[in-house]
Amino acid sequence: MGKAITGREEDYSQWYNDLVIKGSLADYSAVRGCMVIKPYGFTLWENMRNQLDKMFKETGHVNAYFPLFIPKSLFEAEEKNAEGFAKECAIVTHYRLKSDPSKSGKLMVDPEAKLEEELIVRPTSEAIIWSTYKNWIQSYRDLPLLINQWANVVRWEMRTRLFLRTAEFLWQEGHTAHATREEALEETEKMLGVYADFVEQYMAVPVIKGIKTPNERFAGADETYCIEAMMQDGKALQAGTSHFLGQNFAKAFDVQFSNKENKLEYVWATSWGVSTRLIGALIMAHSDDQGLVLPPRIAPLQVVIVPIYKGEEGKKIVDEKARWIVNELKGKGISVKYDDDDTARPGWKFAEYELKGVPVRIALGQRDLEQNVAEVARRDTKEKQTVSLDNLVNEVEKLLEDIQQNMFNRALLFRKEHICQADTWEEFVQALDKGNFVMAHWDGTSETEEKIKETAKATIRCIPLNNPQESGKCILTGNLSKERVLFARAY
Amino acid sequence: MGKAITGREEDYSQWYNDLVIKGSLADYSAVRGCMVIKPYGFTLWENMRNQLDKMFKETGHVNAYFPLFIPKSLFEAEEKNAEGFAKECAIVTHYRLKSDPSKSGKLMVDPEAKLEEELIVRPTSEAIIWSTYKNWIQSYRDLPLLINQWANVVRWEMRTRLFLRTAEFLWQEGHTAHATREEALEETEKMLGVYADFVEQYMAVPVIKGIKTPNERFAGADETYCIEAMMQDGKALQAGTSHFLGQNFAKAFDVQFSNKENKLEYVWATSWGVSTRLIGALIMAHSDDQGLVLPPRIAPLQVVIVPIYKGEEGKKIVDEKARWIVNELKGKGISVKYDDDDTARPGWKFAEYELKGVPVRIALGQRDLEQNVAEVARRDTKEKQTVSLDNLVNEVEKLLEDIQQNMFNRALLFRKEHICQADTWEEFVQALDKGNFVMAHWDGTSETEEKIKETAKATIRCIPLNNPQESGKCILTGNLSKERVLFARAY
Repeated sequence: MGKAITGREEDYSQWYNDLVIKGSLADYSAVRGCMVIKPYGFTLWENMRNQLDKMFKETGHVNAYFPLFIPKSLFEAEEKNAEGFAKECAIVTHYRLKSDPSKSGKLMVDPEAKLEEELIVRPTSEAIIWSTYKNWIQSYRDLPLLINQWANVVRWEMRTRLFLRTAEFLWQEGHTAHATREEALEETEKMLGVYADFVEQYMAVPVIKGIKTPNERFAGADETYCIEAMMQDGKALQAGTSHFLGQNFAKAFDVQFSNKENKLEYVWATSWGVSTRLIGALIMAHSDDQGLVLPPRIAPLQVVIVPIYKGEEGKKIVDEKARWIVNELKGKGISVKYDDDDTARPGWKFAEYELKGVPVRIALGQRDLEQNVAEVARRDTKEKQTVSLDNLVNEVEKLLEDIQQNMFNRALLFRKEHICQADTWEEFVQALDKGNFVMAHWDGTSETEEKIKETAKATIRCIPLNNPQESGKCILTGNLSKERVLFARAY
Repeated sequence: MGKAITGREEDYSQWYNDLVIKGSLADYSAVRGCMVIKPYGFTLWENMRNQLDKMFKETGHVNAYFPLFIPKSLFEAEEKNAEGFAKECAIVTHYRLKSDPSKSGKLMVDPEAKLEEELIVRPTSEAIIWSTYKNWIQSYRDLPLLINQWANVVRWEMRTRLFLRTAEFLWQEGHTAHATREEALEETEKMLGVYADFVEQYMAVPVIKGIKTPNERFAGADETYCIEAMMQDGKALQAGTSHFLGQNFAKAFDVQFSNKENKLEYVWATSWGVSTRLIGALIMAHSDDQGLVLPPRIAPLQVVIVPIYKGEEGKKIVDEKARWIVNELKGKGISVKYDDDDTARPGWKFAEYELKGVPVRIALGQRDLEQNVAEVARRDTKEKQTVSLDNLVNEVEKLLEDIQQNMFNRALLFRKEHICQADTWEEFVQALDKGNFVMAHWDGTSETEEKIKETAKATIRCIPLNNPQESGKCILTGNLSKERVLFARAY
């Protein structure tokens, strides 16, 4: 096996990279910090995107497209937002190359083609979108605006990791405009719910919904809601955020509407996004030392059929049955591949599809066919069973649902086993070191939060929604606290 | 009518802009040369994209994603390609902003964050993709690679027009790698065929397939195939291109594979693309002085129902019937909107949906309902008919197909009436002035082609595929020629 991957225990970080690269999801590129999403990884993203897009449309949103570039003067209009992203902006300063007179066949930036105003490659699109909404919104009749965009964005990160943190990534960003604060808050929470449903029901990853502390808020938001997922090393991964932006962008871009009483008011805003980072979460939540484990509802390929036979005559018999199974499964909307490549042995194929996380593998053996059965293996538990061909299609369909459920339950159980309370600093650090989410008291100040981050390398992931109120003492300062918050080390 | 649009005869160019802006397809943005694609326009693009994507997948292609940025050293590797795009490249030179010490609250480019190597925002992705393919291709077993990418690209155009020529646009770019010249050529032609099928069958725009002259070839291609469409002013619009790239990129990036005889060979390449420019073609091929006329197969909205009633009781009766029709149409997969907004009059709505090009409008009148009928209007011919509610759904379904066919036939007839031969320079210029495509002899030299372009403002759109061979004399020089080529003024 040329593609053996590093074990989780041995080197978690290398295990992750091996899964991404050897599992054919993505590859490094020639551009610093940017990755290539390979066809297998991109199909996974397409499946995720299509489902999310459907959910956005079902909740009344429409897609649009706004420019990649943001003129600097617009970018800096909402000061907190600008300040938050200034340090990681790719900046276009010129619009032409010319032949380099000193090097034949080489090009240089044409100094005469300098832009009057620099353009920022969007790290997020609030600025360009709200400068546009100004022209679209005059009256309460123009509201709400419920718009989403699928796009690439660029954030110049110094330390990058495939999917988790790359200079360019793909995402969607919803940008909505509302007449009232209440309606905008409702939207913020609704979209958090959509994200949670998607991640739990399609990615099979349980999440904790909550609100960020002011320190961890999106730059320019009044409130940031988030969903937090647990990875197999006990670290947290922020899987999606939904921001209540108040009237900050409306004020920065002077977007007012005349209300029913014909008075001018500033518009209320939300924005919300998930990105290709979710693929990182998916990998780390489910995979094992044999490779990826992908949930059936979004797997690029749900079923693979591997033939086992001797000679031409044997192949013919197996081929015929395989074609029939392929047709039947496709008829049920199940994606299936018949891998009859005769240059690779079945054992090699088994390992390959295990590595790639294909949920169900059917081994179609010439001898088994004589008894009208096939061997069906599920990727999540690696269990195999012998199934009569008469029931095969129904069994596979049930199995896919079962795998989906089992993956979620397993991840949920893992999380239950790795979430605890801590009441002393020692307990707190110990629990983190053992790879736990920790519910602990915090005195509510940014200073304490910062100090905990520096000392224990853990951040407040969120204040969970519907958090039970319970008086206690801050884990660090001993000051009074009215509720526990969720701490974890995080990606 | 606040939204009246300029007539075609009055000012064709303003007519086009009015359709785009007032038809809610797109808007100008705060970024020079970049547009905002509005939800209605974006849904149109989604419909086009989804159909094309399906056709690409049916022909064996898969999607992937490559970086937005291309390091200058990679960009310049294929010299002809680099030279062809050098003058219109947006260039990233810095990766950080900082507070401007001289202006409170403002930002400036941080001079200390200058990139060692400049990054080109992709105008097309051959360079970044072939630098990646180098790592993916070792043996003939790795071929063919049939990959497509949906992406944004940037070409710094000096004179921009909504959809037709914008600094940033959306497109797809296929990039395939093959073991033999024949296979690559076959792919080039196959994808041209896919484009032609899509534009004719879905956009209802007839196209002429052909090959570009060396002058008009894609920079870096050995041969460029194209489809050319006729607009209502008789000008041509290049609707799609498919390039046979030979071994140019394989040589520039040293991409070799070991063939079955275990010898190293350079890989053969194709690339092919269509863009949001197609929306410009769609608008100019079909629309009229009342607004957009959109073909049913890709229209964002296929049917609109407008209620006509008096009083609450009347509304209730009409509402109930409308809901039934909406359900029936949706059941047939037809997109439909019931516009019961009571703040706008029916006449206003009629004009609005005419402007937006909705193929079928159903006026549901309270009085008509008493007679179990409704008035159905088709956008393409503006004909109205009274249809029994019992047949309504089937009639609408048939009507949508009929509109689709009629739009294609009408455009085809228009083209037949505006394509001619010319044998003298006077005939040639006159025919062009009257808004025709002109088939004329050309002596085959670049010099003559250039001269004709300068003098008559017409370019050789293509040498049509299966072009009849016929000896004659060049329209400009009188030199011998073996075939006529297609000339036109063009977008």
